[in-house]
Amino acid sequence: MNAPATFDPQAFRAALGTFTTGVTIITTRTAEGEAVGITANSFNSVSLNPPLVLWSLARNARSLAAFSAGQYWNVHVLAAEQEALSGRFATQGSDKFAGIALDDGIGPAPLLPGCTARFQCRTAFQYEGGDHVIFVGEVLAFDSSGRAPLVYQGGQYALAARKPRQELRLGATPPPECSYTEDLLGYLLGRAHYQLLDRLRRLMASQQLDEHLFFVLSVLCIRDNLTLDELNAFVAYTGHRVSAQSLAELERRELIAGEPGRDGSRRYLLTAAGREQSLHEIALAKAVEGDVADQLEPGDVMALKVLLKRLVAATDPGLPDLWAGR
Amino acid sequence: MNAPATFDPQAFRAALGTFTTGVTIITTRTAEGEAVGITANSFNSVSLNPPLVLWSLARNARSLAAFSAGQYWNVHVLAAEQEALSGRFATQGSDKFAGIALDDGIGPAPLLPGCTARFQCRTAFQYEGGDHVIFVGEVLAFDSSGRAPLVYQGGQYALAARKPRQELRLGATPPPECSYTEDLLGYLLGRAHYQLLDRLRRLMASQQLDEHLFFVLSVLCIRDNLTLDELNAFVAYTGHRVSAQSLAELERRELIAGEPGRDGSRRYLLTAAGREQSLHEIALAKAVEGDVADQLEPGDVMALKVLLKRLVAATDPGLPDLWAGR
Repeated sequence: MNAPATFDPQAFRAALGTFTTGVTIITTRTAEGEAVGITANSFNSVSLNPPLVLWSLARNARSLAAFSAGQYWNVHVLAAEQEALSGRFATQGSDKFAGIALDDGIGPAPLLPGCTARFQCRTAFQYEGGDHVIFVGEVLAFDSSGRAPLVYQGGQYALAARKPRQELRLGATPPPECSYTEDLLGYLLGRAHYQLLDRLRRLMASQQLDEHLFFVLSVLCIRDNLTLDELNAFVAYTGHRVSAQSLAELERRELIAGEPGRDGSRRYLLTAAGREQSLHEIALAKAVEGDVADQLEPGDVMALKVLLKRLVAATDPGLPDLWAGR
Repeated sequence: MNAPATFDPQAFRAALGTFTTGVTIITTRTAEGEAVGITANSFNSVSLNPPLVLWSLARNARSLAAFSAGQYWNVHVLAAEQEALSGRFATQGSDKFAGIALDDGIGPAPLLPGCTARFQCRTAFQYEGGDHVIFVGEVLAFDSSGRAPLVYQGGQYALAARKPRQELRLGATPPPECSYTEDLLGYLLGRAHYQLLDRLRRLMASQQLDEHLFFVLSVLCIRDNLTLDELNAFVAYTGHRVSAQSLAELERRELIAGEPGRDGSRRYLLTAAGREQSLHEIALAKAVEGDVADQLEPGDVMALKVLLKRLVAATDPGLPDLWAGR
């Protein structure tokens, strides 16, 4: 417990940062007509009737004069895709509004497009708040777009993984002596992966392809001119092996062509038909992903990808980079 | 755009709800010594020097008198595991503090254990905020635990999927003509799954087990007395099949026993040795998961599981429930 005498500003900031927030850009216009905007996460709602919201601004902020004098300001709740915009408005200098086609608002304050929600406000109160000024605004108009919101926690941007309102159980509650449960990460990963693969498999069945051949074509689409051993170096961690028979089958169907390499080993590349086939399959994989995204809430697939990528990076046994130039 | 004349309270509430927040419980004590506490997500930081935070409370809240009169109150930033506590303090009636062993604070206000962060405050200002009162408090002491915080967005509890500070790329940027990228959900799911499985496989290798035998033992650990066909009904979506040879191998090693069922088909169950083996393997799977959790940030694995479970539910082709009673 940090008592006042030992108040470490960095520790205090870090403790405050554990409170998760969205990210907003708040804009106004000076009497001279100059557009002003800053990134803030001190926003929150206050009152429903009258409709009031608040945020606070550092007393030493360059924009304080503009916000203190201007009656109108707009709060933009940023969408997940607007991380770069957040960074731009958090940094001093340069014209923050350059290249942005503003929407028409009801007041003079700039209204940015592409946000999750927007609140057009008029100052109701300005309150003292230590080294900050607290602005309370009456909401004159608002709108929202359904875009997944950008999240901020512990000094990092984030996305929200929303929990279902009712606890989601895939199966019945297991008896207590059964320690294999649906909450094992490996089970959930495996089941999610196999279910997605199963959808893809059904789509591919009409092309007389299975996922092993799909994988060979995909690897060769990214990296041509591989030997069987090199192909398998990319595949080994899956527990599957590409066989000479599989390659022969793909050659017979003229989807790949084998050529003797300089070192005598046979090197494979996609034929034009194979490349077309491969692109078609990737389109199928993207269609499966699109279907899944439609069944979840906006932002869920983005959040899932962020976490999976971090998991993959954390558990990478040192796989060769499939996409690296040669 | 909703203008004042057409202000729909529900739409306004929904638009405000797109701003993500943490969840706090704020506590105080009446002059009579009664503990008072409410769940609030209107908290935010205000000032570093002096250290100030704020939150707002409805004018018609039962607890308004206690917070208006009491000088001391504590803000608890709730951890992901405290969702039930949040619900308890958001609901009127009953003794909200029943069964909670309070920590010692510097003032009289109750200090709850198990939180992500706590701020012990003394009222600095009370401001008018429409149908709410805005409380600004000076932070007298604070602490934080490193627990993953609970998040609230769009009326639902959530967890944060934090993005790395630098964009995370698993491989080199692919050439533009290559439409198979590391950002495909299927690729990330497959790679994450196979990498985890690969770790488990290495651990199991010392037991002369592979993941197929592991899967058979796991299914039989959850559900005994299955025929080969019934086993395969649970496994089919993985694209793998349990073979009669695999079962014969497990029988030979006395990990499972086959018995003729009433319908003449052979039914399998775990032997005592098989059950022990299976529990040992599940422990290995949990060890792999524990290692992974250590490599990510707290809350990441929780968030990942929430999303995977929703993905599994959304893409479930109607698999039989492995855990259902028979």
